[in-house]
Amino acid sequence: MKESLDFIYKTQKELSTFGGIAALLGWDQMTYMPYMGIMKRSEQSSLISRLIHEKTVSDTFWNHIQKLSKPSNFNNLTEKDKNVVKRLKKDVEKARKIPSEFVEKMSKTTTLAYSAWEKARKKNDFSIFLPYLKKIIELEKEYCGYRNLPGPRYNNLLDDYEEGMTVDVLKREFDFLKPNIIEVLEKIKSSNIYEKQKNPDIKWNKNKQREICDILTDKMTLPKTRSRLDISTHPFTTSMGYDDVRLTTNFEHENPLFSFFSTIHEAGHALYELNMPQNEYKDTVISDSPSLGLHESQSRFWENMIARSKNFWKYFFPVFQKISPDQFKDLDFEKWYKYVNKVQPSLIRVEADELTYCLHVILRFEIEVALMEEKISVSELPVIWNLKMDEMLGLTPRDDKEGVLQDMHWSGGNFGYFPTYAIGTIYASQLFNQMIKEKSSFYNDIENGDFTNIVTWLRKNVHNYGRIMNANETIKNCCGKGLNSKIFITYLKNKYSDIYDI
Amino acid sequence: MKESLDFIYKTQKELSTFGGIAALLGWDQMTYMPYMGIMKRSEQSSLISRLIHEKTVSDTFWNHIQKLSKPSNFNNLTEKDKNVVKRLKKDVEKARKIPSEFVEKMSKTTTLAYSAWEKARKKNDFSIFLPYLKKIIELEKEYCGYRNLPGPRYNNLLDDYEEGMTVDVLKREFDFLKPNIIEVLEKIKSSNIYEKQKNPDIKWNKNKQREICDILTDKMTLPKTRSRLDISTHPFTTSMGYDDVRLTTNFEHENPLFSFFSTIHEAGHALYELNMPQNEYKDTVISDSPSLGLHESQSRFWENMIARSKNFWKYFFPVFQKISPDQFKDLDFEKWYKYVNKVQPSLIRVEADELTYCLHVILRFEIEVALMEEKISVSELPVIWNLKMDEMLGLTPRDDKEGVLQDMHWSGGNFGYFPTYAIGTIYASQLFNQMIKEKSSFYNDIENGDFTNIVTWLRKNVHNYGRIMNANETIKNCCGKGLNSKIFITYLKNKYSDIYDI
Repeated sequence: MKESLDFIYKTQKELSTFGGIAALLGWDQMTYMPYMGIMKRSEQSSLISRLIHEKTVSDTFWNHIQKLSKPSNFNNLTEKDKNVVKRLKKDVEKARKIPSEFVEKMSKTTTLAYSAWEKARKKNDFSIFLPYLKKIIELEKEYCGYRNLPGPRYNNLLDDYEEGMTVDVLKREFDFLKPNIIEVLEKIKSSNIYEKQKNPDIKWNKNKQREICDILTDKMTLPKTRSRLDISTHPFTTSMGYDDVRLTTNFEHENPLFSFFSTIHEAGHALYELNMPQNEYKDTVISDSPSLGLHESQSRFWENMIARSKNFWKYFFPVFQKISPDQFKDLDFEKWYKYVNKVQPSLIRVEADELTYCLHVILRFEIEVALMEEKISVSELPVIWNLKMDEMLGLTPRDDKEGVLQDMHWSGGNFGYFPTYAIGTIYASQLFNQMIKEKSSFYNDIENGDFTNIVTWLRKNVHNYGRIMNANETIKNCCGKGLNSKIFITYLKNKYSDIYDI
Repeated sequence: MKESLDFIYKTQKELSTFGGIAALLGWDQMTYMPYMGIMKRSEQSSLISRLIHEKTVSDTFWNHIQKLSKPSNFNNLTEKDKNVVKRLKKDVEKARKIPSEFVEKMSKTTTLAYSAWEKARKKNDFSIFLPYLKKIIELEKEYCGYRNLPGPRYNNLLDDYEEGMTVDVLKREFDFLKPNIIEVLEKIKSSNIYEKQKNPDIKWNKNKQREICDILTDKMTLPKTRSRLDISTHPFTTSMGYDDVRLTTNFEHENPLFSFFSTIHEAGHALYELNMPQNEYKDTVISDSPSLGLHESQSRFWENMIARSKNFWKYFFPVFQKISPDQFKDLDFEKWYKYVNKVQPSLIRVEADELTYCLHVILRFEIEVALMEEKISVSELPVIWNLKMDEMLGLTPRDDKEGVLQDMHWSGGNFGYFPTYAIGTIYASQLFNQMIKEKSSFYNDIENGDFTNIVTWLRKNVHNYGRIMNANETIKNCCGKGLNSKIFITYLKNKYSDIYDI
């Protein structure tokens, strides 16, 4: 037992070290790497991925895990060791089910598919991407065969990003969410305020945008000794270790709200990474997020529930005013608050407002499930996309660039990923609801720009657990119920009835 | 044979990939890593070093190399394969001579010694560092036993940084160099100009310093798509691959000459890295510099022979003037040229001028040789240091911080390293001399700020060879003779007789 325990802890530590190296290779590629460095960089990243994979699926590792999992041994383990062994067994068992040749085939296909998608998008021609997407979907089906979870095939893909989540549960939630969001949207669209809404003319240079983002991360208690904010085309967060978390934004939009909201979003992810369990679970599989959805709940919590709230702007509106008094002289607080919460159906997911965002996700979920259940074919996608867009948002893309070709996810084989964006948003509303229920003084904290108590609350209720429970269990443990769209809808209705006077 | 050749090329490629990863870990640590990230970073770097070491000394690799080295096989190899196998055999044979336990012991000792050196330096107390330095010197001797090259023990250490270099050769060169430099120095010190020399008051902000450095790297043909300039406390250059070379400088000194000269120095290293043989020797042991001395020759060539020359400033003086007309209004070309070539004996090596720099190196060389030959003991070092300092530079350190504790090299076990700074400087003067002999129109190029022909010349005569020859052979191949201090002394005498009118 001692030998096996030593071995599994040593291996986990090495895997975590490799993980940090992989994160640095990726971060540098997106931030500072000279353009031509990409060829060597992909070799470097592949080498580390291969070493991680080999170490994870090695027979020796698996034998030690199996030995420790035998009831006669397992029952004598400490609580901590039990948690680690249980988690490891699941992870490694899953990884060992996927043949290495398949991983390689998928990786080669997605590399080609990404280029094809880029070209298709540029030329606005879905047919360029079509054969690659077909191939990827075949591979996804093959993958589902290896995993072979009960229920619909798509469950296998969902489970990769949101362990334990199923098509049934998501269908139930989304079938409630969709009509309710559309109902709110319709009311808003027929309101007086919606008709008259327009954007103030705010243009900030990079220095001013950087200034407000630095104030923000500081307020959110991100320590400069353990994190940093850089610039990349697409904002992201990554971690090279407990004390080295990197987030990015970009200052290319003249309107400061893009960098401001992307920074608060990424800072939500970063706080989660910085607060991963360090003590007994340091360098183990437990010290990670159980799902992308739960990770997204942390970013959405800050981006939507906190930073689009009235209380938040009581503190930050004057800060914005002070940085740029000229541009704010015709803006009062109410106008500004309405502006940052403006609803405007759009064709592009990443530009969507808080209300309509989930409709974009539901659209993709419905399509992905239907593809996996072979109810639609890949060549029908552009038409189906546009029909659904019209049904949910009342808009029709002018071309596939505005429609089915807008996101890169499918070219990377990331089926089952999109739902986590909605799951995270729903979880975020549940966490916020619970937090306020426990102590309404959090409202005052937000109003005072003091987020320390909120960070402590999130740490206690979410961050600290790592992967001891899955995401849904973590939310249930904190909020009494697992994934619950009703809370989210109530939150949306309250918010927009005030803003749009409906 | 085919199998062995495949194996050795595959392994070299992996080693080069690991090397690039190690370079990124190091670069990031010195530039962007948040302070607290250091713990994880050292684990990441150690892991990669261990994998590189294991791969290098593995029996399989060695067996393939030995098989290919057998005359019956070797004679049937192509010229290229012969070069690679010969080089590999030397490298791997050497690495296999050093027991892993020794490498670990040395690494642990130097980690502790570095902290002790930092503390000793801060407290200005050599006795704190003394026991660690003693231990390191014992280990260095042990190391020399493993390598066991003919001649004085110190040859083993020299050979690590400057393959093939010996104490005899260096003694001969330095014994010529030392009195000659001192002679020039004495003449300068008794000149009128020396007596009256003072520094102009030039203070530039970071943006202006950045501007001139960007103009400089651009002029030196460093491509932005394959390289970048960042900021670190101590300037350095590193390469993550053929198309990804990073150099650093820092803008903390108000006087722009610090960042300017450190950038041109590092850009010299960077050009070498960017021009390493890529075609047939790509991803092999050949595609690297044969020695630190030859690498240093590339940085010194640009820093001293080019950027401290009159012709260079004919182009750059107006550029400086244009960036900061106010501060340059009382300065004429002659004053400025004299200022950038000012001789001023100093206690600190890294602050030394072009003339006295080599004396600092010779001092360390004499001490290192004597330590290895057990002619002096570690506890005598502070006294011996100060005596030699007085002998060579006519100065006496006020304390050990200004004396024996100033450099970190010994705490890292880098005995045999210092001489490469002087070797590089001598090589640089030989290369410059040869270049001008071949075509005096290079002077016009420098005057016009057009460095493309010079880069082409260096590429053809140095960069392209990689490790096919050792450093001394490369210089001999280009200049007709190997290491030759006479050329350097002639260069110095010509230069300073003009500047100081002696």
